[in-house]
Amino acid sequence: MPVRLQPPNPVDIFPVPGIQIGIAQAGVKRADKDDLTIFLLDSGTHVGGVFTKNRFKAAPVQICESILNSPARPDVRALVINTGNANAGTGESGLENARLICAELGKLLNLSPDQILPFSTGVIMEPLPFEKIIKALPNAVKAAAKDVWARAAHSIMTTDTVAKAFSNKVNLNGASVTITGIAKGAGMIHPNMATMLGYLATDACIAPELMKPLALELANSSFNRITVDGDTSTNDSFVVMATNKAAHPVITSWESEPGQTLLKALRLVSVQLAQAIVRDAEGATKFITLKIKGGKTLEECKKVALAIAHSPLVKTAFFASDPNLGRILAAVGYAGIEDLDQSQIELYLDDVHVATRGSRHPHYKEDDGQRIMKQEEISVTVDLGRGSAFDTFWTCDLSHEYVSINADYRS
Amino acid sequence: MPVRLQPPNPVDIFPVPGIQIGIAQAGVKRADKDDLTIFLLDSGTHVGGVFTKNRFKAAPVQICESILNSPARPDVRALVINTGNANAGTGESGLENARLICAELGKLLNLSPDQILPFSTGVIMEPLPFEKIIKALPNAVKAAAKDVWARAAHSIMTTDTVAKAFSNKVNLNGASVTITGIAKGAGMIHPNMATMLGYLATDACIAPELMKPLALELANSSFNRITVDGDTSTNDSFVVMATNKAAHPVITSWESEPGQTLLKALRLVSVQLAQAIVRDAEGATKFITLKIKGGKTLEECKKVALAIAHSPLVKTAFFASDPNLGRILAAVGYAGIEDLDQSQIELYLDDVHVATRGSRHPHYKEDDGQRIMKQEEISVTVDLGRGSAFDTFWTCDLSHEYVSINADYRS
Repeated sequence: MPVRLQPPNPVDIFPVPGIQIGIAQAGVKRADKDDLTIFLLDSGTHVGGVFTKNRFKAAPVQICESILNSPARPDVRALVINTGNANAGTGESGLENARLICAELGKLLNLSPDQILPFSTGVIMEPLPFEKIIKALPNAVKAAAKDVWARAAHSIMTTDTVAKAFSNKVNLNGASVTITGIAKGAGMIHPNMATMLGYLATDACIAPELMKPLALELANSSFNRITVDGDTSTNDSFVVMATNKAAHPVITSWESEPGQTLLKALRLVSVQLAQAIVRDAEGATKFITLKIKGGKTLEECKKVALAIAHSPLVKTAFFASDPNLGRILAAVGYAGIEDLDQSQIELYLDDVHVATRGSRHPHYKEDDGQRIMKQEEISVTVDLGRGSAFDTFWTCDLSHEYVSINADYRS
Repeated sequence: MPVRLQPPNPVDIFPVPGIQIGIAQAGVKRADKDDLTIFLLDSGTHVGGVFTKNRFKAAPVQICESILNSPARPDVRALVINTGNANAGTGESGLENARLICAELGKLLNLSPDQILPFSTGVIMEPLPFEKIIKALPNAVKAAAKDVWARAAHSIMTTDTVAKAFSNKVNLNGASVTITGIAKGAGMIHPNMATMLGYLATDACIAPELMKPLALELANSSFNRITVDGDTSTNDSFVVMATNKAAHPVITSWESEPGQTLLKALRLVSVQLAQAIVRDAEGATKFITLKIKGGKTLEECKKVALAIAHSPLVKTAFFASDPNLGRILAAVGYAGIEDLDQSQIELYLDDVHVATRGSRHPHYKEDDGQRIMKQEEISVTVDLGRGSAFDTFWTCDLSHEYVSINADYRS
């Protein structure tokens, strides 16, 4: 694993005033594992979310979207998350099962079901064992506490090897504001979004209508810039919660100075979470930053980045530390820019100039390429030489271990 | 390897009147290997070709296209093919080197350079050792013979494990017509086209203006329907040659009865070659036929087929014989059909009805899925339930061996 992820130290993960988390063992897939997590949000919390663009949306994603998009803008007061089963490809009964769980949690918390957002992650197209989850809900409610974010990051994991949690503090008009986020995801990772669940909370005061644009903006600058295997999951969900507890004037525009300060701090945590997913990607041994510049449009840069990031030939070359860099040029060539002029392409590995004008650089030495390819963190810069658009993506290599993990996932 | 490919039996591979093939050892990458192959075409032969859509076109591809697209429609009389080096990402000097080889071969054969089509396959972005190739040309010319198609299939291989050659005979207006084709390719395989070189020859009499549409039509029904890893190579080339030696009236339309008969026979050999590439795909253990029906358009069917065929999660599930079939539904969902209604999707593995209305079929049993997944040849049928378009693709699984082959390719 590139630059080994450390499990979050609970001391560095600050609780967010206004939020409690309860964790329990429902035995969805196996016993003795935390697999049920609930968030309890104080009244006055505003929530925004973005969800998978896969047309095969899991049942809980459909419910979240209908709640958050409802004109009534319901007062969301709880989240309920299970691992071990995605409740996707489960049709009408999947929707019913998710609704039953929300209804039961609503009874326990004295909330209406549409104040509760459900989330599931795990295997697709198997019936959700909702009775097990319902049975464990009272334990989760009973366990609710403020300072269990690091454990929560662990409880939402599936094939992840390390829990992912980050915190940040920022000063807004003299008031200290906390930001804490957790995420899970290690495979089926692709923009829009990862097979990932992400939860970012702050006690900042934010006008409710700013929450959805905030979720979109944060996803675009973080989770939508990572890709592991090109698979867009049925269950991707990213939720931002603002409890409005901090002692500063309400932010009513992201263009304002405090708005910009807060946005920057939130983005930092989102990017840390997104990069942690790539670092923990199934079987990954290299962390690769793709910088694509000189595009006519951002869309062009993205096409090129994804062609490189999804090429099994490029990914296996990184795994082998083999500077077989023509494979990168080939991927640039088939990225889908119809009028690309190969004689304008420049390619760099870190600061080594590999190709110029679409051809091997006269001073490029295989030894230099080899030295960079052996690193655990590598940046690839492609200059398309046709404009001024610039974009950055993060990805990883393709190893034997990826095949093993995904060939054995259910066994 | 699914349904193990047998090396072609030379007895079953018929020479094509009007064509001789010369094979030699140039030592491009290593000694003691046939790596240089020339085709000598009798006067009167007509040639058509299709080439990679990768914007990073190898030098020989650029030369072939400029010759075949030239308004002068030159009288192509020879082909020269090297393995061991792709002469791609090599800029102006790559073009010069390819032209030098054609010029030298032209001297030996008394042809002008633009009567010779060059082809290269192998590693990208390394200078072509053209002197070695030029030095071996006289040996190749000296070796020219009519009945060495099976050996030629072997001499154009790179990471292929089995030579690929097929023959067919067809009767046109009482005359016997021969069709023989060879191809190479095992990785970097993706529509438009495979990393593949394909050469199909017949002694049929075909009007010259019919050759380019023929090459396109044959590629579309064969090589453009296979995918191994989604990588479109810089060097893909497919050439069709008609020597006009057979004793039947010239075919002047593909709509005519003899035109249809010949087209069908040519298509059979093209499809055999394309399927042989998938069967020999790097590390493949399963041969998978994807039948996508119920699309509004063929383009929709293709999107869905490629999303499934390129999903590393689907491919590793096939490798593991794991009926984790929700991964197929997820791939259908992100294939890019914006208004796809998941509740209309039907999914079959061979004749086992796995999912109905987008959800697990009530009678589907894991054991049935498991039984099919264990087979070496599997068909996946997806009914999108939104139209009447139907299309078929062929692909394979993703194994440890794929990673090994591509991580070690240059060592």
